[in-house]
Amino acid sequence: MVKIDLDFVKELTLKERAELVTGKDFWFTASVPRVKSMMMTDGPSGLRKQADGADALGINASVDAVCFPSSALTASSFDEKMLFKLGENLGIAASAENIGVLLGPGVNIKRSPLAGRNFEYFSEDPLLTGKMGVAYVKGVQSKEVGVSVKHFAANNREDQRFTSSSNIDERTLREIYLSQFERIVTETQPATIMCSYNRLNGVLNSQNQHLLTDILRNEWGFEGFVMSDWGAVADHVAALKAGLDLEMPGKGEASVDEIVTAVKEGQLDEATLNRSVLRILKIVEKWGKNHAEKVNYDKDQQHEFARKLADESIILLKNENQQLPLNTEKSIAIIGKLAQKPRYEGGGSSHVNAHHLVTPFEAAPKNAEYASGYDLTTNEPDNELERKAVDLAKQKDQVVFFAGFPEEMETEGFDKKSIALPENQNHLLTEIIKVNPNVVVVLENGSVVEMPWADQVPAIVETYLAGEAVGEATWDILTGKVNPSGKLSETFPIKLADNPTYLTFDASKKEENYHEGIFVGYRYYDSKGVPVRFPFGHGLSYTEFEYSNLQISEKENSVAVNFEIKNVGQRSGKEVAQLYVGNKTSFIEKPKKELRAFTKVNLEPGESKKVTLFLPRRDFAWYNAEKASWQIDNGSYEIFVGSSVADIRLKDKFTLTIGTTPTVKINRDTYINEIINSKDPVIKKALQTSGLGSELEKILSPENEAIFANMPLRALGMVNIPDEMVKNFIAEAN
Amino acid sequence: MVKIDLDFVKELTLKERAELVTGKDFWFTASVPRVKSMMMTDGPSGLRKQADGADALGINASVDAVCFPSSALTASSFDEKMLFKLGENLGIAASAENIGVLLGPGVNIKRSPLAGRNFEYFSEDPLLTGKMGVAYVKGVQSKEVGVSVKHFAANNREDQRFTSSSNIDERTLREIYLSQFERIVTETQPATIMCSYNRLNGVLNSQNQHLLTDILRNEWGFEGFVMSDWGAVADHVAALKAGLDLEMPGKGEASVDEIVTAVKEGQLDEATLNRSVLRILKIVEKWGKNHAEKVNYDKDQQHEFARKLADESIILLKNENQQLPLNTEKSIAIIGKLAQKPRYEGGGSSHVNAHHLVTPFEAAPKNAEYASGYDLTTNEPDNELERKAVDLAKQKDQVVFFAGFPEEMETEGFDKKSIALPENQNHLLTEIIKVNPNVVVVLENGSVVEMPWADQVPAIVETYLAGEAVGEATWDILTGKVNPSGKLSETFPIKLADNPTYLTFDASKKEENYHEGIFVGYRYYDSKGVPVRFPFGHGLSYTEFEYSNLQISEKENSVAVNFEIKNVGQRSGKEVAQLYVGNKTSFIEKPKKELRAFTKVNLEPGESKKVTLFLPRRDFAWYNAEKASWQIDNGSYEIFVGSSVADIRLKDKFTLTIGTTPTVKINRDTYINEIINSKDPVIKKALQTSGLGSELEKILSPENEAIFANMPLRALGMVNIPDEMVKNFIAEAN
Repeated sequence: MVKIDLDFVKELTLKERAELVTGKDFWFTASVPRVKSMMMTDGPSGLRKQADGADALGINASVDAVCFPSSALTASSFDEKMLFKLGENLGIAASAENIGVLLGPGVNIKRSPLAGRNFEYFSEDPLLTGKMGVAYVKGVQSKEVGVSVKHFAANNREDQRFTSSSNIDERTLREIYLSQFERIVTETQPATIMCSYNRLNGVLNSQNQHLLTDILRNEWGFEGFVMSDWGAVADHVAALKAGLDLEMPGKGEASVDEIVTAVKEGQLDEATLNRSVLRILKIVEKWGKNHAEKVNYDKDQQHEFARKLADESIILLKNENQQLPLNTEKSIAIIGKLAQKPRYEGGGSSHVNAHHLVTPFEAAPKNAEYASGYDLTTNEPDNELERKAVDLAKQKDQVVFFAGFPEEMETEGFDKKSIALPENQNHLLTEIIKVNPNVVVVLENGSVVEMPWADQVPAIVETYLAGEAVGEATWDILTGKVNPSGKLSETFPIKLADNPTYLTFDASKKEENYHEGIFVGYRYYDSKGVPVRFPFGHGLSYTEFEYSNLQISEKENSVAVNFEIKNVGQRSGKEVAQLYVGNKTSFIEKPKKELRAFTKVNLEPGESKKVTLFLPRRDFAWYNAEKASWQIDNGSYEIFVGSSVADIRLKDKFTLTIGTTPTVKINRDTYINEIINSKDPVIKKALQTSGLGSELEKILSPENEAIFANMPLRALGMVNIPDEMVKNFIAEAN
Repeated sequence: MVKIDLDFVKELTLKERAELVTGKDFWFTASVPRVKSMMMTDGPSGLRKQADGADALGINASVDAVCFPSSALTASSFDEKMLFKLGENLGIAASAENIGVLLGPGVNIKRSPLAGRNFEYFSEDPLLTGKMGVAYVKGVQSKEVGVSVKHFAANNREDQRFTSSSNIDERTLREIYLSQFERIVTETQPATIMCSYNRLNGVLNSQNQHLLTDILRNEWGFEGFVMSDWGAVADHVAALKAGLDLEMPGKGEASVDEIVTAVKEGQLDEATLNRSVLRILKIVEKWGKNHAEKVNYDKDQQHEFARKLADESIILLKNENQQLPLNTEKSIAIIGKLAQKPRYEGGGSSHVNAHHLVTPFEAAPKNAEYASGYDLTTNEPDNELERKAVDLAKQKDQVVFFAGFPEEMETEGFDKKSIALPENQNHLLTEIIKVNPNVVVVLENGSVVEMPWADQVPAIVETYLAGEAVGEATWDILTGKVNPSGKLSETFPIKLADNPTYLTFDASKKEENYHEGIFVGYRYYDSKGVPVRFPFGHGLSYTEFEYSNLQISEKENSVAVNFEIKNVGQRSGKEVAQLYVGNKTSFIEKPKKELRAFTKVNLEPGESKKVTLFLPRRDFAWYNAEKASWQIDNGSYEIFVGSSVADIRLKDKFTLTIGTTPTVKINRDTYINEIINSKDPVIKKALQTSGLGSELEKILSPENEAIFANMPLRALGMVNIPDEMVKNFIAEAN
């Protein structure tokens, strides 16, 4: 076996090395003597292995593969074990096709409901995204297939995605848009990272040294290679210098020539080229082995897993009067074209040639009758289709109405302009509600949707894009064969305008300004008290859970939170208990609470379990951009435990002491209130000996205290306190 | 008479020059041979001339002077003539006291309802602020007294105001926080500018070269001197270098010594010192003449003007069932301690030793009876006071309830934590509503207030801080002696959390992040559709106005907007017609509409007037930070004419052609949709000859158009279009 090291690299010709830092074609790395090329393939939710040479966006040539639920749904499982298994399934499929690197998972944060690619991402929350991503990556890589964690980073819109600059302050960048990448890199050492199209604060990501080298390599210790998203490289030489390794798919010979020329003309240091070549070869050596023969790849078994994963993820949003589970003894009308032609996967690079699609229409109970009600190719209501559907609804005891976005509305490559359902769906639903009160709405959509009719229907089920077993999984939930346990991984606002990015998302051609800062998703709605349709973390069950006995104890390196959950209903079920932390201490912008841990607990009726969740130090940290480090302030914090961000069952305060307590630094900018409130004996003494203490006492009358306490030492001249006294005090206090 | 020029400056000793760039004491510039010192005095709403040597925040020693309404109220007049007269009155008062420079007006933007100094500022809108400021400054300076326009700039919070950094993007800075200063400087050439305490994007304003020199001097052509707010200088030498001229009040000899030393040790260029000395001496020469003898200063006459100014400014917020004007034949209960101890002026540096206060209690109709109802020194309801007030309300036909913030709640020096009225006021009002439906609420407050009871009372009158004639003016409006014509210069939200700065205002000790960008005030509420209590520009009259006949015509350098207003009611009155412009063209963040002109029209019953408002080019401009210039894009704009931002009576679109039409620049980053939508014949031809046109036609199928149109030329390799063809197209298109 060939030993891949710098010596090996140096033995390659310049042209060979230049070939290695660009794609051989759309899906392969280049081959050089003794190292074969490695195939990479799209598909966070199922393989999209295309014929060699097919273009990046063609969708017809890919192999038959099981289409798993999209990440929007799988994140709703809040179940790391399920995500690990998903990774294993994908790893097996990839192995069987001799693929070295699977291009996924996508772990960008859902910032705006309009973003065209939300379906492909996990959540609006970085912790949930990070944990789902870690489990997924570990699963794939456990099967000797590498991953490409994408899209690095802050690629949160599709419009003008090749050039638009995501303008984000450093703290927000670290806490919201990078922390899930950080978690995945440090916990799994993924084979590759895919660098995204956009700019970050003006600099193209593919040429961003801060991002690709300072943070990714030097801070997080990433050892794999960084490839570009397809077509993301504008300046190949600048990209290599910044830390990008592989241009994909490359511009053919032109990409090779420009590197050769740059080295010859001295614009590119050979050491820089060699660095990237070595990184690429090491990954190809590790992950690029073909082992299709030894893999047991059973697609029908994978289909069953796809169903189970959807079962564990579908969210019961609303269920009044025990409308669900359906009574299969009674008659059922199925209405909506989406039952027959379901939305079950995303468009663009995540599109899979599904192995065995089972539609809700096909999987329906025998006694159910169907009317399409609307057409998917238009937004206009069709009188004739509506009449038939309303007639059917009248005759039946229960109605299951399928609604959702047609694929043309949401896909990779462009953003939505609205999150309203097509007019023909909303119109028909309104008509049906008039003739039958027992309406269950089943949603098929990649991202949040407005539900103006939400108060008028007794039950709503969110299936997102549920994969090829969509029909089976949907009926598993509707009929109660499976007790729903999914929880929303994103907030459903009442209307688009309630979202913090409304007015500014996609508003500028050149720039996307992250005005809301850290107040993304529930961090905004919950903190500001904006009413929402369904909060983050929300999801009902056919049973009920009780929380009790919250206990918080500080350990040496973490805080342990204990509580109990009991199934107080009549059937077994699973509850996702969520732990949020509220910082009452740091004098910075902060949300009311942030998700810091969660667990999914399976409970039989009447059963009770003790839960212990550990919060490591970092869960209390904020990113101090000025000091370029994470800061943990000792003081008061609030712990919230609940069934959603808005359904908090237990809460308590405690005092953190395993962080750091900043000392008051006395200088001319120090404010009077910091000085008079300080317990530091040195400061107290200096107040006395300098004479400043008694001067301050004179001016701090009750009616003036608020004003004077808000003055720094250097301004005391305004109240006739001599500057000499201030100087003496500062000297004595330090 | 001495000739002030650089030669004169150079004849002064270094020590004399050093003395000139620091205050002699709290209120005077230094004197040097042949140039006397000049006095400067607080008071945008009336003189606060203090005894020499009194400290900056003392309030007892100031001379007797007429207290005019605060700027929060005067801006509500929307009447430039009245503001000019206010300036004249202040100029006369200052002249009579031998004052060279009056420290005002304050023209900062009301960004957060919590900001402690809002009462002293005009508006949340820069146009209204600028126009009011211009009229005020022209009035003062017409009386041979200079002004100091303050607080320059972006000083929008009081907490930590000496050190906090206002972090604002350049476009927002120019459009929202500087444009009123720009208007005042360029249209009035004010004697001085007062530099504020805060930092701007990290740099202390007093050391901010960009602000004090690049923008203020080089762009706007300011010729006066820049003084510091009292105590705003942290580094005297750095401040002089950046463009600050006068440190106030200075640190006595220490301030002089540090300049002398810096020059001697070469840290400060003498030319820099001389530049500031010359600016100061020129202003002292021009404005520092004592002419008290020749001034006719009649305080009683000024009091009458204070009353008239309040009459024209007080806002009738609500008036159902013609509750107002009061029927003075019927009985009246006056309830609320604020009737007897009114809030009529701001705290801090704007506090005036009022010449002749007339309280609402004193000015009330003879038949009115009074009960205090609540105490101003506590928030707690007092059972006994409440019982008496409720009893009185029961017995009377009409109730006038005085409510407002006690002075301790809002003043210079610290920010509010809430905009709720004290609990005892809200509680009593709720009790009174139960026993008498005919309640008129009169508000005395410096800034917006939450009104949870607004739907339950028929009439609400906003008097802000109405000056010493508060009593007379309030009853002028209540009784109908004066027909109200004030309009809100700021939005009243339903609750504090609705404001865009909620969660982030005062949240960080070191930084104030202007997250909302240009979406300040109505630019946020109106654009985002957030329900408000009372919108910007709102104010009722005892008569009604009809708008008609909107006509828009483009001139050589402006757009003329014509319309008619008719008084269709039974009594004479004044209407403030507001003109807003909506930009439908520029691909940037933009509000739905922005105030660009207004006029106040006096109409007899049945009378109709034609109004013509001219919008200069600049009214269609946005600040392009990348190009550091104002940009006017040709295309579609919307004109709205109305009685408030939410009560638009007339609107129409038109196409602007006096701006510039950007040409599509073809390079590798140009997007396909720009190319295929271009009407440029050169581009069309290049598409044909290069062969790119027919390639694009192939891929732009209806279902893929949205994706591909959103790709730049450089990414076309992804759809197998050769890079050579792209290069040829670019070469031919340019």
